[in-house]
Amino acid sequence: MLQDDLVLANRILANEGVLDAFGHVSVRDPENAQRFAISRSRAPDLVEKSDLQILDASGARVGGSDGPSYSEVAIHAAIYRHRPDVHAVVHSHSPSVIPFGATGIPLRPIFHAASAMGSVAPVFDIAERFGDTDMLVRTAQQGDALAAVLGAGTVALMRGHGCVVAKGDLRSAVFVAVYLERNATLVLQARQLGEVHYLSAGEAERAGEMILSPMSRDRAWELWTRRLNRPG
Amino acid sequence: MLQDDLVLANRILANEGVLDAFGHVSVRDPENAQRFAISRSRAPDLVEKSDLQILDASGARVGGSDGPSYSEVAIHAAIYRHRPDVHAVVHSHSPSVIPFGATGIPLRPIFHAASAMGSVAPVFDIAERFGDTDMLVRTAQQGDALAAVLGAGTVALMRGHGCVVAKGDLRSAVFVAVYLERNATLVLQARQLGEVHYLSAGEAERAGEMILSPMSRDRAWELWTRRLNRPG
Amino acid sequence: MLQDDLVLANRILANEGVLDAFGHVSVRDPENAQRFAISRSRAPDLVEKSDLQILDASGARVGGSDGPSYSEVAIHAAIYRHRPDVHAVVHSHSPSVIPFGATGIPLRPIFHAASAMGSVAPVFDIAERFGDTDMLVRTAQQGDALAAVLGAGTVALMRGHGCVVAKGDLRSAVFVAVYLERNATLVLQARQLGEVHYLSAGEAERAGEMILSPMSRDRAWELWTRRLNRPG
Amino acid sequence: MLQDDLVLANRILANEGVLDAFGHVSVRDPENAQRFAISRSRAPDLVEKSDLQILDASGARVGGSDGPSYSEVAIHAAIYRHRPDVHAVVHSHSPSVIPFGATGIPLRPIFHAASAMGSVAPVFDIAERFGDTDMLVRTAQQGDALAAVLGAGTVALMRGHGCVVAKGDLRSAVFVAVYLERNATLVLQARQLGEVHYLSAGEAERAGEMILSPMSRDRAWELWTRRLNRPG
Repeated sequence: MLQDDLVLANRILANEGVLDAFGHVSVRDPENAQRFAISRSRAPDLVEKSDLQILDASGARVGGSDGPSYSEVAIHAAIYRHRPDVHAVVHSHSPSVIPFGATGIPLRPIFHAASAMGSVAPVFDIAERFGDTDMLVRTAQQGDALAAVLGAGTVALMRGHGCVVAKGDLRSAVFVAVYLERNATLVLQARQLGEVHYLSAGEAERAGEMILSPMSRDRAWELWTRRLNRPG
Repeated sequence: MLQDDLVLANRILANEGVLDAFGHVSVRDPENAQRFAISRSRAPDLVEKSDLQILDASGARVGGSDGPSYSEVAIHAAIYRHRPDVHAVVHSHSPSVIPFGATGIPLRPIFHAASAMGSVAPVFDIAERFGDTDMLVRTAQQGDALAAVLGAGTVALMRGHGCVVAKGDLRSAVFVAVYLERNATLVLQARQLGEVHYLSAGEAERAGEMILSPMSRDRAWELWTRRLNRPG
Repeated sequence: MLQDDLVLANRILANEGVLDAFGHVSVRDPENAQRFAISRSRAPDLVEKSDLQILDASGARVGGSDGPSYSEVAIHAAIYRHRPDVHAVVHSHSPSVIPFGATGIPLRPIFHAASAMGSVAPVFDIAERFGDTDMLVRTAQQGDALAAVLGAGTVALMRGHGCVVAKGDLRSAVFVAVYLERNATLVLQARQLGEVHYLSAGEAERAGEMILSPMSRDRAWELWTRRLNRPG
Repeated sequence: MLQDDLVLANRILANEGVLDAFGHVSVRDPENAQRFAISRSRAPDLVEKSDLQILDASGARVGGSDGPSYSEVAIHAAIYRHRPDVHAVVHSHSPSVIPFGATGIPLRPIFHAASAMGSVAPVFDIAERFGDTDMLVRTAQQGDALAAVLGAGTVALMRGHGCVVAKGDLRSAVFVAVYLERNATLVLQARQLGEVHYLSAGEAERAGEMILSPMSRDRAWELWTRRLNRPG
């Protein structure tokens, strides 16, 4: 069931423009909180159930497909270690989000549909503690540093790389990731026009709860699932 | 007949990029002006005839599908109460329109195809009277406040949320909503180039009448309907 | 033969993003230079051979489909009257071109593929001589005024409306219209970066001849035709 | 085998938005380093195995399809002459790259996926040595001048025209060309926000090696190949 949703999550995130050849989405094992499921190293749009692996809290493979793992499973492992409330993680190179990570311009919610991102997204710069790297979060230490920037929040941007979304359930994480991308596009445009009136902290909190209600979240999930099965 | 058009309107607005998982379109009941038809809570691109509901002037369900209603039927109910000339309402998160609502930069028609929007779109900010909310227009009072900003016009933007289009017939409302989105994209681009020469009030009025003539409006409707049945 | 190409021209221009529900393309009758062929009033993407009409130099229908004509056949009629060298005319609301007509920022070729547009596109503002109108070029006088701005050139922008492309053969007119749109997008982007080094007049002339050579022009035509028959 | 990959490379580059009716991709003959394979003059999206030609180091046809060659085989011939380490060349009018060539604003990697482009792309301006031309690189001298600007690098922009990508193997050249285009879009956006923190030279070098590892490069190749066979 959850594995079916994880396959769908991979393909939805690709189809909605959040993931391309890279990026990944995982879900905590509901029966063993020390473990999580994620695809083997494969483009998300192509992921099938037989590609899924079970990894432990250190990111080591303990079940599922025996293909090579993604290079950055440390991202997922670290967030699950630090955040017991989190049950799903998306790591993406969400295109419109990258300019914010690269400039330090704060990414905030410009409309209610993106409000569950929180009222501003912090930025993780791997160079601050690790100097010149290949930009990947490969070690437990690097994962810890990213998780520290994420803190108790939902989104963290990664300078020169992408972002992470961490949420209490898989469909909500997918929802936030999709609207984070759309929000970034709109903020890019709005800043060309003039000063932007973002949602207030109070609005972001109220709207963030509303927008992830089952009625709202599942309405989007139904649409995005149906779009997978259509040409175009 | 009108119900068939309402299903098509839902799918056209989704297919042309005005609606996504959210937003809705309604039409006043031609036989009972106190009622209107609208889908149950469902992504517009997936709406079928069996999803349609009949609501009364307070937004209460009096017929049709017994699924849950959209959270914002108060938008439609209020506009139909205040505007006897209006027979169709679109509420959308039309993407390129959102930056205008969030910055207060006036949205005006840059070309004749968008002229039926009127010569400038007012902005409704729910916080002005209702403080921090989840941004949804849920109550009759909130609907009244939105209808007051719309006044006798065709379009009102909603800060941090989207916009509404109100028009005398369904196909015209769809037409205005589609070209409102395209107009917003063009104004965003043009403002990067320099000062924009918008249509004058006289041009907007003359062009607005012409562009909603049956020959023009139905030419677009035929195209948009045909595009629904094609892959891509 | 030429009629087949005219149907393809309609659909290519729609499929490549130059025409939407509006705009039209015509070709001079090779056997009677006082006449031209153009679709009846219909969205270009839907045009079939049976929709074609033959109009005379005043824009009156003298053959073909008896459906209503487009409201702006005066554009085509005027250009054919004033420009014996022209055998094909495209009138479009080419989206990225509209911001240039609305701001007066000169549209020039930024790369060789668009060079056949000439080294700069003049702008026709219907209000200059005709005051507040519905923006359409409906009369012979309005057509003459537009043709005067076009002069001996290939492209004229129309403020608040769109543009015209006039060329010696149909495939070349389509080619120029497609790359005019793409050029406008690129110029919009480049101007955000800094001062643009456009093609010089000498480069535009040499490249403009090269790019419309049969080998080049027909390579594009083959691609665009094949794309019509594919989903997506 | 390599010919199959060359056909795929043509179609992938078209499908991913790097090539349109124009541009070409070639691969050095693994059995005769003085020769390379490239399509006859045809839109890349339509190229089939029977369209491939074998050219020698001067760009003369020595085998394969007897159709006319592209006008710019001198680009490929020159790079293969000057760069024994290069086994694949892409010449494109990659849209978002053109504004950088036309303004001289440096194009640098904003994220790790584009890092294999090198830390900055030099610009070739054909007018500097050859005055007003039709912008095409047609002669050995022009090819030499372009190869000199490319130097030992991977990418060179061409003012008013496009760019070249030169790499040690075909899949890597395709990878760099695709992410060069996406990087240009992101840099265009980021510069609107503020000062851009690009990858450092050390990061670009480390990430550039990582991103072209077989695991990474072939993950993208698998995705892009599968997308060819899908509608949309």
